Amino acid sequence: MKNKAWTLASFPTGWVSEENFRLVEAAAPQPKEGEVLVKNLWLSLDPYMRGRMSEQKSYVKGVEIGEIMTGQTVGEVVESKDPAFRPGEKVLTGLGWQLYGCAKGAELNKLPEGRAPLSYYLGCLGMPGMTAYFGLNEIGQPKKGETVVVSAASGAVGSVVGQLAKIAGCRAVGIAGGKAKCDYVVKELGFDACVDYKAGNLYRDLKAACPKGVDVDFENVGGETLDAVLRLMNPFSRIVVCGLISDYNATEPYALKTFRSILVNRIKVQGMIVFDWKDRYGEALKALGGHLATGRLKYRESVLEGIESAPRGLIGLLKGENFGKQLVKLA
Amino acid sequence: MKNKAWTLASFPTGWVSEENFRLVEAAAPQPKEGEVLVKNLWLSLDPYMRGRMSEQKSYVKGVEIGEIMTGQTVGEVVESKDPAFRPGEKVLTGLGWQLYGCAKGAELNKLPEGRAPLSYYLGCLGMPGMTAYFGLNEIGQPKKGETVVVSAASGAVGSVVGQLAKIAGCRAVGIAGGKAKCDYVVKELGFDACVDYKAGNLYRDLKAACPKGVDVDFENVGGETLDAVLRLMNPFSRIVVCGLISDYNATEPYALKTFRSILVNRIKVQGMIVFDWKDRYGEALKALGGHLATGRLKYRESVLEGIESAPRGLIGLLKGENFGKQLVKLA
Repeated sequence: MKNKAWTLASFPTGWVSEENFRLVEAAAPQPKEGEVLVKNLWLSLDPYMRGRMSEQKSYVKGVEIGEIMTGQTVGEVVESKDPAFRPGEKVLTGLGWQLYGCAKGAELNKLPEGRAPLSYYLGCLGMPGMTAYFGLNEIGQPKKGETVVVSAASGAVGSVVGQLAKIAGCRAVGIAGGKAKCDYVVKELGFDACVDYKAGNLYRDLKAACPKGVDVDFENVGGETLDAVLRLMNPFSRIVVCGLISDYNATEPYALKTFRSILVNRIKVQGMIVFDWKDRYGEALKALGGHLATGRLKYRESVLEGIESAPRGLIGLLKGENFGKQLVKLA
Repeated sequence: MKNKAWTLASFPTGWVSEENFRLVEAAAPQPKEGEVLVKNLWLSLDPYMRGRMSEQKSYVKGVEIGEIMTGQTVGEVVESKDPAFRPGEKVLTGLGWQLYGCAKGAELNKLPEGRAPLSYYLGCLGMPGMTAYFGLNEIGQPKKGETVVVSAASGAVGSVVGQLAKIAGCRAVGIAGGKAKCDYVVKELGFDACVDYKAGNLYRDLKAACPKGVDVDFENVGGETLDAVLRLMNPFSRIVVCGLISDYNATEPYALKTFRSILVNRIKVQGMIVFDWKDRYGEALKALGGHLATGRLKYRESVLEGIESAPRGLIGLLKGENFGKQLVKLA
C-alpha cells in the first residue's frame, strides 16, 4: 500500500499558498505492537490549522517543517496490533493529512456505524459541533428571547450555533459572505436573519437585523466583524471568542477599535477551545445527535476529492470559499 | 449662605480643559418637604467623570450643558425637612461639584463618625474601595500564588487592588507613572514590584516583574498598557475591565493589537461597574474596614483646597498627576 502525505514545507507569511506544502509518497507504515494501521476515508479541514502553520505561540505546539500536517480524520482499521481494534472498524483519528497512518489504540475513538454518515463525526457530531455546543451554552448562556449573532454562519461551527440558538428560543442572526450563503442560512437553517458582510454595510445591516441589540456574539471571525458587533452589544451581554479567522492570515493583527464597549456594557468575553470540555463530549454528542435525528439540526458539507486537493481546500476555507463543513474525501 | 457650583460649559474634544467648566454663584438652595440641605466637606474626583462629559453612550446619562458636574461628596446636614436626618450628621451624597445642595433623604447615606476619617468614604471605604473589592474578587478570582497586575497602581482603586491581592497570597505587580509612585507602591503599599510605564520599556519591564506570567489583570488604563499585559497573560487568566483612562481623552479610540491572546489563552474578560454589586456594599465595607483597622490596608490622599480647584484637579487626575486618591477639600 502506498501512502501519500502532505508535510509542511515552509511557514506562510500572510496567506497560505500551495508552496507551503509538500506531498510525500512512501510505503504505508507498519503497525508496531499496540498500534493500529488506519486507512483514512475523510480528512477534516478547519481554520485552526492555520495557527499550527506558525512559529507563534498558540494553544498547542505547531507543525514543524517536514512534519505531516495535523488534522482529524475518519478512517477504517486495516491491521491491528491492539486487541481492542479489529480490521474494518471505523475510527476517529488525529493522523493528519495522509492516506494511511499508525496510531496507538488509546489515540483512536471508535465510531458507531449506521447512526449518521461517518463524515458527520468530523463536523456537526465532531469537534465543530462540540465547539458550537459548549461555546454557546457554557459561555454564551443564551436565554429565551435574546439575540444571538454568529459570524461564519454557514460554516461547520456557525451553522450549529445558530440552530442551537433557535432551539433555545433566541433570535438567531448570522453573518456570512454572499447572497447564496445568507439565503441558505435563513431559508435552510432557519436563522431569523443573515447579514452579508460582502455587501459593504455590515454595521448598518447588522443593526437592522438586531433591533433589540445583541446579547450573545459567537465570534468566529474577529477584525471588522467583531468591531461592528461590539457596537451593538447590550449591557451584560456575552462574547464567545471561538475563532478570529480574519486575523490568521494577516501579517499585522487587526487593531480593535471598540474594546471600550466591553467596559461600558459590562460584557463578558471569553476565549475558548473545545478540548477544555473533553470530559463532556458524550453529553454534546447525545444532544446534537438527537437534534439531527428529529430534523431540527441541518448540516451541509463541502467535499473535495482526493488527498491532492487538501492544500487548495484549506486555502479556500481560509478565504471563506467553502460552503458548509469542508472535507476531503480520501477513499 | 452663598453656593458655588461648577457646571458643564461645553463638551471637551480630547483633553478636558478649564474652559469646559463654568463656576456659578447663587444663594444656597432651600430644602423642600422631605429634603435635606447639605454643606459639602469633601468632593471626590474620579476618572469616570470624563465619561459623563460626553454625548457618547455610557453606563448612565451624561451631564448636560449647564448642569452641575456630577460627583460624590461627604457633607454635613445643615437643615433637614426629613425626620430621619438631623443637623450635624455626616452623609455621603451625590450632590456633585458644589458647596451646598439639597437632596431627598433616600438619596443620602449616613456615615459613622470616629471609625475612619470621613474622606475615606470617598476612597478606600467608598466607591473606589468597593470597585477594587468586587472587581478583584468576583471577576479576577485570584488564587494563592497567582500573579495579579494592576495599572494605575498608586491610585484610589489600584492601591486597594494590589493590597487585597497580597492579602489573598498573590504576587502583586503594579504599573504606575514615575519613580516616586513606583517606590510608594512597593515600599509603602507592599506590592512585590511596580513597573514605571514612563520609563519606556513597559513590556520588557513587566515581563521581568512577572516571571510566571499574569493570572489576573485589573485594568484601569487600557491602550498600550493593556496591549503589553495581554502579551503576558497565562492560559485561563482573567481581565477585570474597570477603566480605560488612556482612552477617555483620545479623539480616536486606541486600537488594540493583541485581542488574539484572549482566544489563544482562553482568557475571561469582563467589564464592570461597582453599582452592579450595590446590595453587597456592606460586606465590602466590613472587609476593607477590617484591613484598615489592622494596618494591612494603607491609603494615601491627594488633597486640593477649595471648590475653585476642582476642574484643575480632574484634569490632573486624567493626566495621572495625582498621587493617591484625588479629593477637593471644600470646608
